[in-house]
Amino acid sequence: MRVLIIGAAGMIGAKLARRLAEDRQIAGRPITALELADLGLPVAPPGDLPCRCRALDITAEGAAEDLVSNRPDVIFHLAAMVSGAAERDFEGGYRVNVDASRALFEAIRRAHEAEGYAPRLVFASSLAVYGAPLPDPVPDDQIRTPRSSYGTQKAIVELLLDDYSRRGFFDGIGLRLPTIVIRPGAPNAAASGFFSGILREPLAGLPSTLPVSREVKHWLASPRAAVGFLVRAAGLDTAQLGPRRTMTMPGVATTVGGQIEALGRVAGAEAVALIEEVPDPQIAAMIGSWPRAFSPDRATALGFEAEGSVDELIAVYLEDDAPGWTAR
Amino acid sequence: MRVLIIGAAGMIGAKLARRLAEDRQIAGRPITALELADLGLPVAPPGDLPCRCRALDITAEGAAEDLVSNRPDVIFHLAAMVSGAAERDFEGGYRVNVDASRALFEAIRRAHEAEGYAPRLVFASSLAVYGAPLPDPVPDDQIRTPRSSYGTQKAIVELLLDDYSRRGFFDGIGLRLPTIVIRPGAPNAAASGFFSGILREPLAGLPSTLPVSREVKHWLASPRAAVGFLVRAAGLDTAQLGPRRTMTMPGVATTVGGQIEALGRVAGAEAVALIEEVPDPQIAAMIGSWPRAFSPDRATALGFEAEGSVDELIAVYLEDDAPGWTAR
Repeated sequence: MRVLIIGAAGMIGAKLARRLAEDRQIAGRPITALELADLGLPVAPPGDLPCRCRALDITAEGAAEDLVSNRPDVIFHLAAMVSGAAERDFEGGYRVNVDASRALFEAIRRAHEAEGYAPRLVFASSLAVYGAPLPDPVPDDQIRTPRSSYGTQKAIVELLLDDYSRRGFFDGIGLRLPTIVIRPGAPNAAASGFFSGILREPLAGLPSTLPVSREVKHWLASPRAAVGFLVRAAGLDTAQLGPRRTMTMPGVATTVGGQIEALGRVAGAEAVALIEEVPDPQIAAMIGSWPRAFSPDRATALGFEAEGSVDELIAVYLEDDAPGWTAR
Repeated sequence: MRVLIIGAAGMIGAKLARRLAEDRQIAGRPITALELADLGLPVAPPGDLPCRCRALDITAEGAAEDLVSNRPDVIFHLAAMVSGAAERDFEGGYRVNVDASRALFEAIRRAHEAEGYAPRLVFASSLAVYGAPLPDPVPDDQIRTPRSSYGTQKAIVELLLDDYSRRGFFDGIGLRLPTIVIRPGAPNAAASGFFSGILREPLAGLPSTLPVSREVKHWLASPRAAVGFLVRAAGLDTAQLGPRRTMTMPGVATTVGGQIEALGRVAGAEAVALIEEVPDPQIAAMIGSWPRAFSPDRATALGFEAEGSVDELIAVYLEDDAPGWTAR
């Protein structure tokens, strides 16, 4: 079985490639080769699984045909222009998040019509398809009312995923991932970056700023859980899904205060003292319109599992991304 | 105020043009000129309102720029490939229903960015954005789960309408019209055609076939009501709408049996006897997945009004489209 990861240089894409190179199978079917593609050249994971890495702009003419030219059996489509960038760059957001996705879907459809090709396609969607006012928790049958261009773009691709799957052009499944905490590496520019930062930086003995109140509640899962969702989706019997192909993934519903308490339990009061509250009304307003918690009943019934607590999120980070860590 | 109707040769588009040529204003703002466009050349309505009629393929390169070149203040976007055709012709459906709509939206956006142009845009959406399983009645906040390519395409444009309006590129409003009954003219190929046919043909002393059971329930409004919705949408204060720009329009919830009883009241048992039941399992299955009734609370609160009974639907047809009709 050939596996293609589009967006393989991203944090989740790279972790997914490493997991697949270790597992060498999905749901019992052996993987014979990995193909990794991203705008910047992805890094091949350790191990001896045949792996082809390519730098490629998915918005370029012919890129989609090129990506599916080896007819991968499983395609992970993780490539996207992120939320803030898609809000600043209207044309670019639609080009990357809608047009490139549709070009990929169309390349698969043409191969389907020519030769019956119909791969499993796993699409990373987003909780940004939801916008205020929202119930807490948000049920699986909540209407999608995005309040950003990024959320609109993801909701459009969710609709396309259902229609192309209904037609049999591919066997699609979409996952709305929780906010990923703790992201390894340096702080990034995302509005949601502080959810990781207020844990990651103090764990490393570094200061961190908190732009919102401690009462803010959000939906979190670890990078390891996100990779687990993707692998499970690739191997799932989609007959269980019905016509609605995208599901909200499980996560930990926690307040920022709950995160800080867990940090204290793991790393002590000194770590907590490294968090400085610097209210940012703009970030607070944006986060305030986001969903806070979900009842992901469909995904739970299909065996998707996240962590159960912030303590676990921290433990997973220390195991996977901060080996050798000890409390100061 | 300049008014553009895209899809002006269709039944609703032509009736809308006649109504605007009579009214010569929308919400008190005088209309100075009409522009009518469709694939086939539209017919100018009676009266002396300046009117330009054009045959134009909205999927052609440059068509969208051309349509907005005179910067109409109000644009009615009614052009579409219908449900059955979009299901048979996958590429054509997306080209007409998604790509041409987006090209129109983009032409407006570019004019907005160049010179601040921001027209009112009234978009005809469809109940096909909903698919089984559905509650009865369907509430305004029901999740959109189309079960056809046509419904998918309309749901995508609803999402775009919200995003472009949120950005201020235009002031959009979308209407999900009920099934239109009684459509004047000859029977058409639409799966829903019998909802009109079982009234229209017997009223004219002609036989008609009924492909579904009398228990089938559906959501109906007259062509006159549909035109009324569009005109009201063009003049509405959209500040009342909030970020969700598309609404389900009110209608008459009736069973086929209820339609036939009303026919009997107006035209007698002889007319009813002209209906022959010829069950068509394929049509029955398709109609069975359609929504049956709605609670269009948002539209009702904003003053949108449909008929109250099938008897009224018949009366409107006889007044508007069968003048001089008398019971046999």
